[in-house]
Amino acid sequence: MIVFATQALAFFLSTGNHARILIALFIILVAAKLMAELFERLRQPAVVGEILAGIIIGPSALGLIHLTSTPDGIASPTTEATVIEALAEIGVIFLLFTVGLETRPSDIFKVGRTATMVAVMGALLPFFAGWGLLWMWPGHSSIEAVFMGAAMVATSVGITARVLSGMGLISAEASRIILAAAVIDDVIGLLVLAVVSSLAKGGVDYLDIAITAGMAIGFTVLMIAFGSRAVNIIRRPVAALRINHSLFMFSLVLCFGLAAVANLIGIAGIIGAFLAGVMLSEATDETPLHHQAQALTEFTTPFFLVNIGLQLKLSIFLSSQIVILSIVVTVLAVLTKFIGCAIPVLKAGRRRAIQVGVGMVPRGEVGIVVAQLGLAMQAVGASVYGVVLVMAVATTLIAPPLIKLAFAGEQATEQSELDREFEYGIR
Amino acid sequence: MIVFATQALAFFLSTGNHARILIALFIILVAAKLMAELFERLRQPAVVGEILAGIIIGPSALGLIHLTSTPDGIASPTTEATVIEALAEIGVIFLLFTVGLETRPSDIFKVGRTATMVAVMGALLPFFAGWGLLWMWPGHSSIEAVFMGAAMVATSVGITARVLSGMGLISAEASRIILAAAVIDDVIGLLVLAVVSSLAKGGVDYLDIAITAGMAIGFTVLMIAFGSRAVNIIRRPVAALRINHSLFMFSLVLCFGLAAVANLIGIAGIIGAFLAGVMLSEATDETPLHHQAQALTEFTTPFFLVNIGLQLKLSIFLSSQIVILSIVVTVLAVLTKFIGCAIPVLKAGRRRAIQVGVGMVPRGEVGIVVAQLGLAMQAVGASVYGVVLVMAVATTLIAPPLIKLAFAGEQATEQSELDREFEYGIR
Repeated sequence: MIVFATQALAFFLSTGNHARILIALFIILVAAKLMAELFERLRQPAVVGEILAGIIIGPSALGLIHLTSTPDGIASPTTEATVIEALAEIGVIFLLFTVGLETRPSDIFKVGRTATMVAVMGALLPFFAGWGLLWMWPGHSSIEAVFMGAAMVATSVGITARVLSGMGLISAEASRIILAAAVIDDVIGLLVLAVVSSLAKGGVDYLDIAITAGMAIGFTVLMIAFGSRAVNIIRRPVAALRINHSLFMFSLVLCFGLAAVANLIGIAGIIGAFLAGVMLSEATDETPLHHQAQALTEFTTPFFLVNIGLQLKLSIFLSSQIVILSIVVTVLAVLTKFIGCAIPVLKAGRRRAIQVGVGMVPRGEVGIVVAQLGLAMQAVGASVYGVVLVMAVATTLIAPPLIKLAFAGEQATEQSELDREFEYGIR
Repeated sequence: MIVFATQALAFFLSTGNHARILIALFIILVAAKLMAELFERLRQPAVVGEILAGIIIGPSALGLIHLTSTPDGIASPTTEATVIEALAEIGVIFLLFTVGLETRPSDIFKVGRTATMVAVMGALLPFFAGWGLLWMWPGHSSIEAVFMGAAMVATSVGITARVLSGMGLISAEASRIILAAAVIDDVIGLLVLAVVSSLAKGGVDYLDIAITAGMAIGFTVLMIAFGSRAVNIIRRPVAALRINHSLFMFSLVLCFGLAAVANLIGIAGIIGAFLAGVMLSEATDETPLHHQAQALTEFTTPFFLVNIGLQLKLSIFLSSQIVILSIVVTVLAVLTKFIGCAIPVLKAGRRRAIQVGVGMVPRGEVGIVVAQLGLAMQAVGASVYGVVLVMAVATTLIAPPLIKLAFAGEQATEQSELDREFEYGIR
């Protein structure tokens, strides 16, 4: 009674939502890190543990985090769901920004041709596999089949980047191919989605799509080609600013600015953040920026990973139809992406090919986004949406152990030593 | 047309809200830092510039950030407003956590008696002044007068902490008194608010209030007295964890955990965060934790400051009645807090007394919270709410220049040197 009264008072203060948000953040951090520790001890990737933490604390299992409430019969997202989703987005933005900081523009140019082939092949195979499968599978419309294909194109580079930077391998040759291919893959994904959405609406405006393509490609190429020079010109004025940590603040502004521009063009915000990191990489080598960005990444990444797990509703597994389709789709998603991405790299040896192939497998949040779009356009039914969700989460859980295996024995680069050095402290 | 189509597509992707949130974050960071730079060049406190940035980009002026939308005639907060408010709360939590990291438990005990007197006197004078004023002022109910008194009790230590850490003076004697007094002030504020809320509801349950008081005081004292020892015992197991940056992650968990507990007890989340910092201060001196926490603070504090400015609606200044009352209330709020807090420190010299007095003046977000509660309970009308809002923002804008003046010539401590050292880089 008394506890309730105090709680009621607390909830009544502006605390109101604040208490619920703070509790949600606390639960997510604790659950993510406990599972990460458990998985580290089992010699499994920590990211898998953190995604599973999301499933465990989410609505399907323990129900510690509520994503929707139905105050007047209509389900609407809770305040904590909105905040968690925003932190998840900020988390994957910082993750790719940090990865960009370790990537030189020349690193991307060097692997440009291979990465383009990887992205194109890695888009075509999964698309036609997903389309063909649902086209043959009974009970699905042809537009649903197209959406399934589009959802299978997406690559979630955040997961792979997290695993590889954890291993200190973000600068390895295969990592560079994966990163560059993921950028191109995202542009292809945007175009596929533009075509698919137009189909669902009834007609395809080729001019519009060509302009979208031009903007996306132009933005990416411009930033990689001239971004570094622009930063070099501007870094002295920035250093002369009177505000504290001016370089850090400038970098944050650039990161969010390019993420917003990328989003407005239609590609993922993380591509903009990655490009911002690449632009800054050469000029900021000797500065504390890398450690500052890493602190932000460490704080926000758990929200990105847990949020993937939170999205999964275990109740869809009650239908055996859906379970079978989910398994077939997931197997196809893994195989077609792996084969499509590995083949163009075969000339660099089987080991590299396998590394790139598995690195491109996770669909993560990007696949979920495509399915959500289809749902919003009423082009996709609840069952296909559920199947895509399972495929997205499953590929994201399957890939990290394979990545660890494929990269085992690679030489970790300076960055991970820098990391260890940074972690002196009470260890 | 084409731009619109691309934008529409972008908004349609899960990007949807994401693009709007990213743009809002970008605008806030740019506006805050431009104004901070301008104010630094004018030799004025950067915090004032950042709060003004909020007023400028907010609904009253440029309208770049929308806080409410009215989809079905009912005003509800936009997604970006929810996210900004959460980041503001996280920002002031990290701010106080970082300040706590620079504060030893013994620092607080040493100034305990003085700080208690400062907090008590600094609560009584403003409360009776606010109450008495509105009681005499025509057209206000007696319950409104009580709420005004309660709103004038609150101290927003975040603002003062930000100014003092920017000057490298967070470890100065007066700073310690201010910090300790702010913790006690918050407990007193909670009790005043509990009594006031009960009055508004019709009756006062003294047992309940006594239990709330006991929990708040018990929590604070326990954490300061035994927290450090608990951290000392647990730090070796934490260091032995396999996850990356285990100490940093543990600290974040502790910070959000204690913030949530504080919130549930009824005191502000920032008090819990501050106590978490104090507990960790001794054990983490030689670790990178301080720099990692600082990076989080630098990123999130602009949202806290800008959000204060965003709350202010300039339209209330159209009524001369409200303008006059606002001025009288603001003057009273500054004078009574200053006198109440300075008197108990007079024995340590006039300079110390003035430093503590001005340091306690900002009401910031805490005053706004009290007024919001009154509004929600229908105990306070729109005009009094507006007046409290003006008072809260005005005291927050007036205090920083006075703090800079009062502390001018004080010796900056090691921490600020550490800061400068950390900022080597391209400077």
